[in-house]
Amino acid sequence: MAKKQKTFRPKPRLPKGMRDIRANEISAMNNMLAKLKEIYELYGFEALETPAFEYSDCLGKFLPDQDRPNAGVFSFEEDEDGDWVSLRYDLTAPLARFVAANYDGLPKPFRRYQTGSVWRNEKPGPGRFRQFTQFDADSVGADSVAADAELAMLGADSLEHLGLKRGDYQITMNNRKILDGVLESAGINPSAEENELQRLTVLRAIDKLERLGQEGVQLLLGEGRKDESGDFTKGAGLEPKQIDQILAYLAASSDQRTDVLGNLESLVASSEIGQEGLKELRDIDDLLSAGGFKADRVRFDPTIVRGLDYYTGPVMEAELTFEHKNEDGQLVRFGSLGGGGRYDGLVARFKGTKVPATGFSIGVSRAYAALEALGKLEHEKLMSPVVVLVMDQENKGDYQAMVQNLRGAGVKSELYLGTSGMRAQLKYADKRAASLVVIQGEDERSEGKVTIKDMDAGAEMSKEIEDNKEWREARVAQKTVGNDELVATVKEMLEAREKALGNNEAG
Amino acid sequence: MAKKQKTFRPKPRLPKGMRDIRANEISAMNNMLAKLKEIYELYGFEALETPAFEYSDCLGKFLPDQDRPNAGVFSFEEDEDGDWVSLRYDLTAPLARFVAANYDGLPKPFRRYQTGSVWRNEKPGPGRFRQFTQFDADSVGADSVAADAELAMLGADSLEHLGLKRGDYQITMNNRKILDGVLESAGINPSAEENELQRLTVLRAIDKLERLGQEGVQLLLGEGRKDESGDFTKGAGLEPKQIDQILAYLAASSDQRTDVLGNLESLVASSEIGQEGLKELRDIDDLLSAGGFKADRVRFDPTIVRGLDYYTGPVMEAELTFEHKNEDGQLVRFGSLGGGGRYDGLVARFKGTKVPATGFSIGVSRAYAALEALGKLEHEKLMSPVVVLVMDQENKGDYQAMVQNLRGAGVKSELYLGTSGMRAQLKYADKRAASLVVIQGEDERSEGKVTIKDMDAGAEMSKEIEDNKEWREARVAQKTVGNDELVATVKEMLEAREKALGNNEAG
Repeated sequence: MAKKQKTFRPKPRLPKGMRDIRANEISAMNNMLAKLKEIYELYGFEALETPAFEYSDCLGKFLPDQDRPNAGVFSFEEDEDGDWVSLRYDLTAPLARFVAANYDGLPKPFRRYQTGSVWRNEKPGPGRFRQFTQFDADSVGADSVAADAELAMLGADSLEHLGLKRGDYQITMNNRKILDGVLESAGINPSAEENELQRLTVLRAIDKLERLGQEGVQLLLGEGRKDESGDFTKGAGLEPKQIDQILAYLAASSDQRTDVLGNLESLVASSEIGQEGLKELRDIDDLLSAGGFKADRVRFDPTIVRGLDYYTGPVMEAELTFEHKNEDGQLVRFGSLGGGGRYDGLVARFKGTKVPATGFSIGVSRAYAALEALGKLEHEKLMSPVVVLVMDQENKGDYQAMVQNLRGAGVKSELYLGTSGMRAQLKYADKRAASLVVIQGEDERSEGKVTIKDMDAGAEMSKEIEDNKEWREARVAQKTVGNDELVATVKEMLEAREKALGNNEAG
Repeated sequence: MAKKQKTFRPKPRLPKGMRDIRANEISAMNNMLAKLKEIYELYGFEALETPAFEYSDCLGKFLPDQDRPNAGVFSFEEDEDGDWVSLRYDLTAPLARFVAANYDGLPKPFRRYQTGSVWRNEKPGPGRFRQFTQFDADSVGADSVAADAELAMLGADSLEHLGLKRGDYQITMNNRKILDGVLESAGINPSAEENELQRLTVLRAIDKLERLGQEGVQLLLGEGRKDESGDFTKGAGLEPKQIDQILAYLAASSDQRTDVLGNLESLVASSEIGQEGLKELRDIDDLLSAGGFKADRVRFDPTIVRGLDYYTGPVMEAELTFEHKNEDGQLVRFGSLGGGGRYDGLVARFKGTKVPATGFSIGVSRAYAALEALGKLEHEKLMSPVVVLVMDQENKGDYQAMVQNLRGAGVKSELYLGTSGMRAQLKYADKRAASLVVIQGEDERSEGKVTIKDMDAGAEMSKEIEDNKEWREARVAQKTVGNDELVATVKEMLEAREKALGNNEAG
């Protein structure tokens, strides 16, 4: 094998749609995740971690794109036994498996949160990766829509805790049962198996309202629609009168939750399931109002249906309403960064009996991009390192001792590990965004002294300086002290720096 | 598909060797990871995240088990293009890919740390999982053994920061070049291609010293060894005189680093590579001493060779020396929880030119098990929730408002989301390890009051209590206050609790 390595040289490339994440982004990401964790725990959700892959039959196939039934996930044979496993494509399906396997031992309702990578075998694009992070909260075992209302509140509180201000986001809610009621009123039994595909096609058509506009949706509700490329998408095949009923439903939006409820009333008056859905939304409205959540934070919107097949009741979406420039430089609404809804059937896949459940998921990279666009990313406090230069390889032990003394005092510090001269070492310190460098040349050593230099103050100058002699002559923002004063002086200079920089070190 | 779901019911099982991690363990694990991060950053290492899978040719096959060249990793076709990817089996191979791809932009030397899951397609066993977490530090671009010495110091400092006391752990170091020198002295050219397999067999034999004892190693250095099951492992085929030289080398251990260096001197006197290795260990000794690291923290041990093929210089292992009971109830040394070494050839796989690199990796689950065995696990401060009972479904809004007021004041709290009676709700609160429950029945409501009950104080009693009336009569460790005093009273009672429990809430 070693022989092969000598002749074959692989290209060091990332798999399609994958990326490396560097320290600066990791720090801001950690900060975000910590904030989300705070809110989720404040709401009483407990952490869970499930493995990266599951048996494929346990995950099921719940991704929206039904045209390619095997696409969407990464699957492989676990081992010689021939069992197939799939990398998780969301955190909901593994939760359903977990709950089904551990049902009796769990508190009911069971509130859990989970964050981690998920993988999608989809075509990557700009900002569209095949591995990304989700942050989910789910309540399992709660029939009451109080669980759904709570998730909407948690969503709104989470976004504000991340730094989004009121008005820049909205949680929008709806109830699948109301749409079913509209279908029923239009003469289509939504729970009949033979209408399943038609119902799903209607859902998907509505889900495209923002992208295609009313005209596009109208076509998709009817015979179908030809897109710009000439591809034809078959429609739901509804009659014109039925289409009008759906469009009337979609027009029921309003700024106030009670107005939406009023508008929907007559549309589902004759449908039991519709009435049930409306009653649930009313209960949610009461709970939201009791919790102090007005329509500027949580709205009702009949056009929110979510593309996933498995939702059975209330659905919700987290939307960012501010505008930002897209890749083509156009100002557009930032759009959705997560959502969820009630899925009373997922655990039943395993158990046979219905287990009510509802969840809400935030796309962490989307949230990151949003905060970046708003200039609201906050980094963990990252200390800049102190770099101890090696002026003399023979006495490396002395420099090592300085570094360990600094580290012992809690000062992030590094020994220069290369063998290059002073100029390269200063360049290295620059690249590391070092705060200070510590220098002890021959002269200093003979006097038992050490020089500490502020890197920002002398940054420009350092480019010109070739050796220690020039350096000492320049004497920019530096102090020379006795060896035993090194740690104390470094700490003083770091404090002074921090004051001068007004704590703007982050990032 | 929905039809299939109705008939087929998958068993909710975990893939072999996988596990779910619950909140309590996650909290202790987070605490550990945060501590490791502190030390790694103090040492100037910066964070990096690479994706879960890489192109298979980029990862290479560097797992020890050469008998099954395709085993050890989980691989699958990325998509229709036919490119194969593999889940990472360690964090070193992805780092080599990252460095090769981004070489020019990186500070040299480049110190990075990374933590994350790795996956091994190996037979699972007790405590042996197929997904586990590593925490790695690596320096790339540093030829000097100062980088290796630094990793040994970082290892020792990390283990102490986790809570291991001096004497319970040891970092042991050695240098592959010295073993090569011994081989050379025994008449085997260690760099000749035709001796590659023999050299590797010798390495692996030595690596088994602790498990098989000297006699076992002696057999593996010679013709081979039959184990208890009758399986025969072919040996390195050394002559008796050569075997004696290796055994003399293995006996060169001593408590003091300088003694080990002295013992090795004569064994590699005639070998250039051996002398080079010895010189490197001497330099490391100097740096360790200068940094204040004595042999009670970092030892030299000729028997440490590490099983991996790719090490080219200094190697090290983190060992826990205290004894604990194994699964069979026997007292055994806890053993290794990580290690590393210099791998100057890994980046060269991509670039053609040699890029010096050295690394150290901690097995996070092993470290967790060690701290658990020592009773030294520390959890993140987990607040116990306050549970607001729903005594009356009609007035759920009132209870919701209480919960939101508590959350708004930073008190972790939950609305009971089910529809069961008081007894079940108290059981739920017990299961959630609630600190307090908030109760407002009809009587309290009519008086504008609310009752707050301490769960620990009245835990036993609650089992007996069937309804709110009995409850009010029992009046165990509870306060009834005006509605507007709820938040303040809850905070007071939580503070009193915390004082009483002496901050022992964690976990």
